[in-house]
Amino acid sequence: MAIEGLSINLATVRKQYDMKQAVDACLKQGITAIAPWRDQVHAIGLSEAARVVADNGLRVTGLCRGGMFPAADAEGRRAAIDDNKRAIDEAAALNADCLVLVVGGLPEGSKDIVHAREMVSDGIAAILPHARASGVPIAIEPLHPMYAADRACVNTMEQALDICDLLGEGIGVAVDVYHVWWDPKLDQQIARAGAGGRILAHHICDWLVPTTDLLLDRGMMGDGVIDLKRIRRTIEAAGFHGPQEVEIFSAENWWKRPGEEVISTCAERFLTVC
Amino acid sequence: MAIEGLSINLATVRKQYDMKQAVDACLKQGITAIAPWRDQVHAIGLSEAARVVADNGLRVTGLCRGGMFPAADAEGRRAAIDDNKRAIDEAAALNADCLVLVVGGLPEGSKDIVHAREMVSDGIAAILPHARASGVPIAIEPLHPMYAADRACVNTMEQALDICDLLGEGIGVAVDVYHVWWDPKLDQQIARAGAGGRILAHHICDWLVPTTDLLLDRGMMGDGVIDLKRIRRTIEAAGFHGPQEVEIFSAENWWKRPGEEVISTCAERFLTVC
Repeated sequence: MAIEGLSINLATVRKQYDMKQAVDACLKQGITAIAPWRDQVHAIGLSEAARVVADNGLRVTGLCRGGMFPAADAEGRRAAIDDNKRAIDEAAALNADCLVLVVGGLPEGSKDIVHAREMVSDGIAAILPHARASGVPIAIEPLHPMYAADRACVNTMEQALDICDLLGEGIGVAVDVYHVWWDPKLDQQIARAGAGGRILAHHICDWLVPTTDLLLDRGMMGDGVIDLKRIRRTIEAAGFHGPQEVEIFSAENWWKRPGEEVISTCAERFLTVC
Repeated sequence: MAIEGLSINLATVRKQYDMKQAVDACLKQGITAIAPWRDQVHAIGLSEAARVVADNGLRVTGLCRGGMFPAADAEGRRAAIDDNKRAIDEAAALNADCLVLVVGGLPEGSKDIVHAREMVSDGIAAILPHARASGVPIAIEPLHPMYAADRACVNTMEQALDICDLLGEGIGVAVDVYHVWWDPKLDQQIARAGAGGRILAHHICDWLVPTTDLLLDRGMMGDGVIDLKRIRRTIEAAGFHGPQEVEIFSAENWWKRPGEEVISTCAERFLTVC
């Protein structure tokens, strides 16, 4: 039995499976959409990864991840741009819906978040022509403000969409409920993103209370406080009807369980609480 | 030697000192502004606390804290309003610059943050007449979005100022750099707050990288990534020239050091990096 509308971000089972094993486990449970990370693709090789995708008729809801643009010197910024261009090529080879960007935070030793944000806009501008030529939409993922220093200095939908409006075609946002559920302007900005055709991905998991680790304590859908159904309705009302992609980093819980159980739980929760 | 413009929020030394001991330790180092928490006031009694403040000519930059308005039922919401009115009376007795509100998060079992926010606005509206009559300004403290579920569902300056504009006179914001440093609209909203005469307090500490605990791992000024001087200039340009109030919750570091060392470090950093 196929489960329509559900994608598994393979970070969710990265401790249990390599990419091929994860795909097999998804297919066994009727799930035909995935989102791999680049290290998972590299581990089996890009051509093999592309073959796995094509042979199984998989939808790739995103390739994770490009970004990480800010750097302390020009050489570092150039290296980031080159690496992002390679990521675009990989996304094209996998026929991914988008390349997801985690844009990067403050360079080592810097306290200048305004400058970091300029480096992000400049970096995206530099890769966008290659993305357009490759037919790969670029998805900025606004990350929760608790990651502003060390992972991503784009922290709200509004800020991400301002960058999109500045840069034009071929770019949008990945809406991850974990990062944006708290935002008082969420509904307004989802509507704005939808009107501009800029919603490229919809990631789900849950916010646990308490949260014991800033990075690796994401919850399974239904175990936390995010009103997933409400946000889904808002995103669908804005015109996005792509798969919901489960992305859970959970060092002490889900990464320690059998992969099969994790994926079946994702499927069961997707069908009941999302 | 007096240190002008520095206030110590007494939570910073709550494990080392009671309120009287903390005041003595501050005075010894030339610091004449403090911000106590209600439990610290209650521990020595309100009249004794007021006497300590008056006899020593202390400036009380804020009383922490009122708020916590959302509740699962009407009785809980009424109890919160009653408690906030008592907090207003205590702030008046201490001649505090403001009563700081940590507004509260989701009631137990709720995922409805929109409703929680309505309960916050309604609760503040209910206490505001008493605050105005008592001459106690109410300071909404927008808390970092990582506290949206369990501490405060007001998470940006913009959101707090929208509530202020809705409710009128006698209310403003406490700008705590820890909660707002990441906000792409920070400068804009500080200017807005200043223009409306709504900046009531300026709290400082630092954001550590990495941060190992969501609540109790705040850094000493200078040890993290917040550009304190820049934010101070922005706040002063907006017309607020009150003391900077150091508020550090640090279970594994500053709460374990001698109180005298903590306060002298606050003073030294205030004079060098703030």
